[in-house]
Formats: sequence, C-alpha cells, structure tokens
Amino acid sequence: MKKIYIVGLGPGNEAMMTAAAREAIDKSSVVVGYEVYVDLIRPLLAGKTVATTPMKREVDRCQMALEYALAGETVSMVCSGDAGVYGMAGVMMEVAREHPEVEMEVVCGITAACSAAAVLGAPLIHDFAVISLSDLLTPWEKIEKRLRLAADADFVICLYNPSSKKRSDYLQRACDLVLQHQSPETCCGYVRNIGREGEQATLCTLSELRMAKVDMFTTVIIGNSQTKVINGRLVTPRGYKNV
Amino acid sequence: MKKIYIVGLGPGNEAMMTAAAREAIDKSSVVVGYEVYVDLIRPLLAGKTVATTPMKREVDRCQMALEYALAGETVSMVCSGDAGVYGMAGVMMEVAREHPEVEMEVVCGITAACSAAAVLGAPLIHDFAVISLSDLLTPWEKIEKRLRLAADADFVICLYNPSSKKRSDYLQRACDLVLQHQSPETCCGYVRNIGREGEQATLCTLSELRMAKVDMFTTVIIGNSQTKVINGRLVTPRGYKNV
Ligand SMILES: C[S@@+](CC[C@H](N)C(=O)[O-])C[C@H]1O[C@@H](n2cnc3c(N)ncnc32)[C@H](O)[C@@H]1O
Ligand SMILES: C[S@@+](CC[C@H](N)C(=O)[O-])C[C@H]1O[C@@H](n2cnc3c(N)ncnc32)[C@H](O)[C@@H]1O
Repeated sequence: MKKIYIVGLGPGNEAMMTAAAREAIDKSSVVVGYEVYVDLIRPLLAGKTVATTPMKREVDRCQMALEYALAGETVSMVCSGDAGVYGMAGVMMEVAREHPEVEMEVVCGITAACSAAAVLGAPLIHDFAVISLSDLLTPWEKIEKRLRLAADADFVICLYNPSSKKRSDYLQRACDLVLQHQSPETCCGYVRNIGREGEQATLCTLSELRMAKVDMFTTVIIGNSQTKVINGRLVTPRGYKNV
Repeated sequence: MKKIYIVGLGPGNEAMMTAAAREAIDKSSVVVGYEVYVDLIRPLLAGKTVATTPMKREVDRCQMALEYALAGETVSMVCSGDAGVYGMAGVMMEVAREHPEVEMEVVCGITAACSAAAVLGAPLIHDFAVISLSDLLTPWEKIEKRLRLAADADFVICLYNPSSKKRSDYLQRACDLVLQHQSPETCCGYVRNIGREGEQATLCTLSELRMAKVDMFTTVIIGNSQTKVINGRLVTPRGYKNV
C-alpha cells in the first residue's frame, strides 16, 4: 500500500500534538517537511529518512513526498498547526491527482486560530472568520472584500500571515477596513510564537492594533461587537441574547 | 492555588486528544462535564470526583466547577472539540468573573471544522467562516446576514449545529441564502460522528445539500467558488492565482 499521511503538528510544542499525529510519524519511513517544522520533532525521527526543503517550495515538497510514496515508502508530510488550514493537505492532493493508488490521510492538528484563542482567553466562542493577509496567491482586492464583509457581519476575525517585510502596512490596512463597521474600542489581541519559546500575548483595542508591530509568526484576533475583557482575558459571549 | 482547566477533548476518540489535555485531566482531582463527553474519557477518570450535568445546563456546570475550585480542588471542565469554539471556555470566564484568584487555563483541542475537513479532504485550505445555525442565543436574522455576507465574500463556510428537531429546515434555509451568491454545483460535504463510532462522510453539491438530512452530530462544509473534488476528496486551492 502506498500511503502519505499529511500531519498537522500543532502550534509548536509536543504537548499540543495529538497521539494520532505521533502515530502517523511512527509508522512512516520517510518524513518530509519545511526545515523549521522538522526540527520541532527531531526526537521522533530517529532511523527515518528526513527530507526537508526551504520555505515556499511547497510544490517541490509534495512532489518529493509523492516520489517516495510511489517507491513504496510510507511518508509523513508534516506541517505546523493543522495540515488543512493554509497547510499542505490541499497542494499534496493536487500534486498527486494522477495517482489515486496513493492513499492519503489528513491527520489534523491544533490550528493557530484555536491555540491563539486559548492563550488570549475565549474570543472564538461564537461565529468567526479566518482570513490570511498574504496576497501571494490571492488578489488584495479579494482580501479587502472579505475583511469588509466579515466586519459588516460582526464576525470575530482571525488573521493569519498578518505581516511580512514586503507587506508591513497590511495589518493597518486591514484594521482600517474593519473600522468602517466596528468601533475603535473593539477588543482585540495577538499572540506571537504560540507554544514556542518566547510566546507573547498582547491585548489591545482595534485602534491600537492598527499601529501594532506584528510579524509572520503572529496570529491576530479582532473581536466582534460583543467581545469584552474579563480579568485580563478576551471573551466573546455565546450570542446576542442575554442569559 | 485555585485552578480550573477548560479542556477540549477533540472530536471523540482518544487518539485525537493532545498530550496537554490528558495531562490537565491527570492533574485534576475533579472533572466536570456534560455526561456524554465524560463517558468518552472514563478510563482517565479513576480515583477522581466526576460531576456531570445534562446538556444545556452550561451555566450550572460552570458554577459547579467554580465551587470545587474555590474549595481548593484542581478542576478540569471538559468539552468536545475545542473548548474555545462554541465551547465552555467563555461561559466559565463569565461565571468566574468575581473570582480573579481562580487561575483559568484553556487547553485547546481539535475543533469539528478541522476534524471534518480532514475526513473530507482539504476544504479549509483557504479563508473560511464558521457559523452556528443555532438560534437559541442569536437572532435568526443575524445568522442570515452572516450567511449572506460570507457567501458574497466567497468564504468556504463551515456550519456547526446544522439542525435540531425544532429547526429541521434551517440547513435548507442556509443553503438558499448561499445560493444567492454561489452556484448550485458548488462542492460541499458533511460528516457525522467524526472520530466516533459510525463516522460517516458525504460529498454533494450545494443543491443536494439543500435537501440533505443532517442532525446535530454533523458538521457541514460548503466550498467556495474554487473548491473541487479530486479523487473523491474535497479540495480548496490555496488562492485564486494559478501556480
Ligand atoms: C502558512 S500559515 C500556516 C497555518 C497552520 N497550518 C495552522 O493551521 O496553524 C502561517 C501563519 O499561521 C500562523 N501561525 C502558525 N503557527 C503559529 C504559532 N506557533 N504562533 C503564532 N502564529 C502562528 C501565523 O499567522 C502564520 O503567519
Ligand atoms: C455546541 S457545538 C460544540 C463544538 C465543539 N466545541 C468543537 O470545537 O468542535 C456542537 C456542534 O459541533 C459539531 N460537532 C462537534 N463534535 C462533532 C463530531 N464528533 N462529529 C460531527 N460534528 C461535531 C456539530 O456541528 C455540533 O452540532
């Protein structure tokens, strides 16, 4: 049987991996991934073939995984967070489309929206939208439209890829769009390096978030109109009706 | 130290729990939860005080947890999926607002959106919105608005609480709203009893979803305009630009 597991490792520390993820890696003879993530799980890799590629070479990485699988190896393709949220599961299936004989199993992990929320308190208790600010593969106009409509709908908004060197003002632009529908006092927060060394959480208002310096290792949460701060934690109520 | 862990157990089977969740339960002398979820983790509960309440008594359950914590017990409040997504983390913080001396830690779990996506393939690879169809605490007009705007924004849409006895036509109504913006051929899927006995996944089009019979143990995913089926799996590309 030719098999590829596409495995989400969670945000960073081993305690936040599932047993199923560990088991998939155990069963694999080859582990493929972006260098940084493979380093996070070094202790699990003894005796295995480890194939890494630099960032942004996702298609190459999937082709590599496919070739190993076609040669009869059991492969784990590892990624951070959940493999299915801005992760490798989709590309892997696209790259392997001509090879239905290769079985593919997605082993899910804790995605950054959930791990960031847990650090901040309970901001995702009610309806939310997850938006990436990366315009590498999506036109910025499309991202803008999503931000505007999500704010109009009063979704809690979780932002992935909030910044990069080339896009240092994107978070500010995103906040300006949300500010067309939400108050500058809206409760927000962001977390850097979740589950990794130097984890750092910040609570702020939407107008403060507009000026915040964040990097690509950060996940941002913008509350809805009901989100509040209780004892230093960001909390969204379960709905709009009082209970 | 007075401490409450609010612990997400993941979708159902122990393999999808994190080590951190298991550890929190290990450290607790009291475990509080809805009966059905407590039953999922019976083997972990030997020697602990177990306090359960029926469904829908969330506030009672949190008060119970708080009282145990104030009496000096270490408490785990357990819930299915992630404790922070339509889970108990928010209510717990609201109920304990007068007791900042009680430390609260949210231990995240795999939420149904991610576990459903993994079963179906890779539908959440790009921006998505999570919406509950329960109008117990949210006016239906608000839910309608979110559905309309999310569809207009071309989000992949993940629906929790898609149905109940009293709301048997809600999924149909939701599909009708999405159909104002998306094609009847939009690729969709739903999964019942994820990670539990009798797990069952179905792929369908949006017009078929409109007629589907689903229950409250089901999570529904409606693709965006780019979502397709590859070798029987639901896959959303990483963006709109060709790669
Ligand atoms: C390409 S996406 C990968 C997401 C990943 N598959 C997941 O489910 O979490 C990268 C973005 O995820 C977020 N992210 C992932 N891991 C993180 C961590 N440990 N701390 C903070 N943000 C993280 C950041 O917003 C980052 O820019
Ligand atoms: C009150 S919400 C709780 C969500 C949970 N905290 C989570 O993060 O998954 C209940 C809804 O979650 C979804 N759900 C939770 N567990 C599920 C499972 N094992 N299989 C299918 N759907 C599930 C269903 O849509 C259900 O109606």
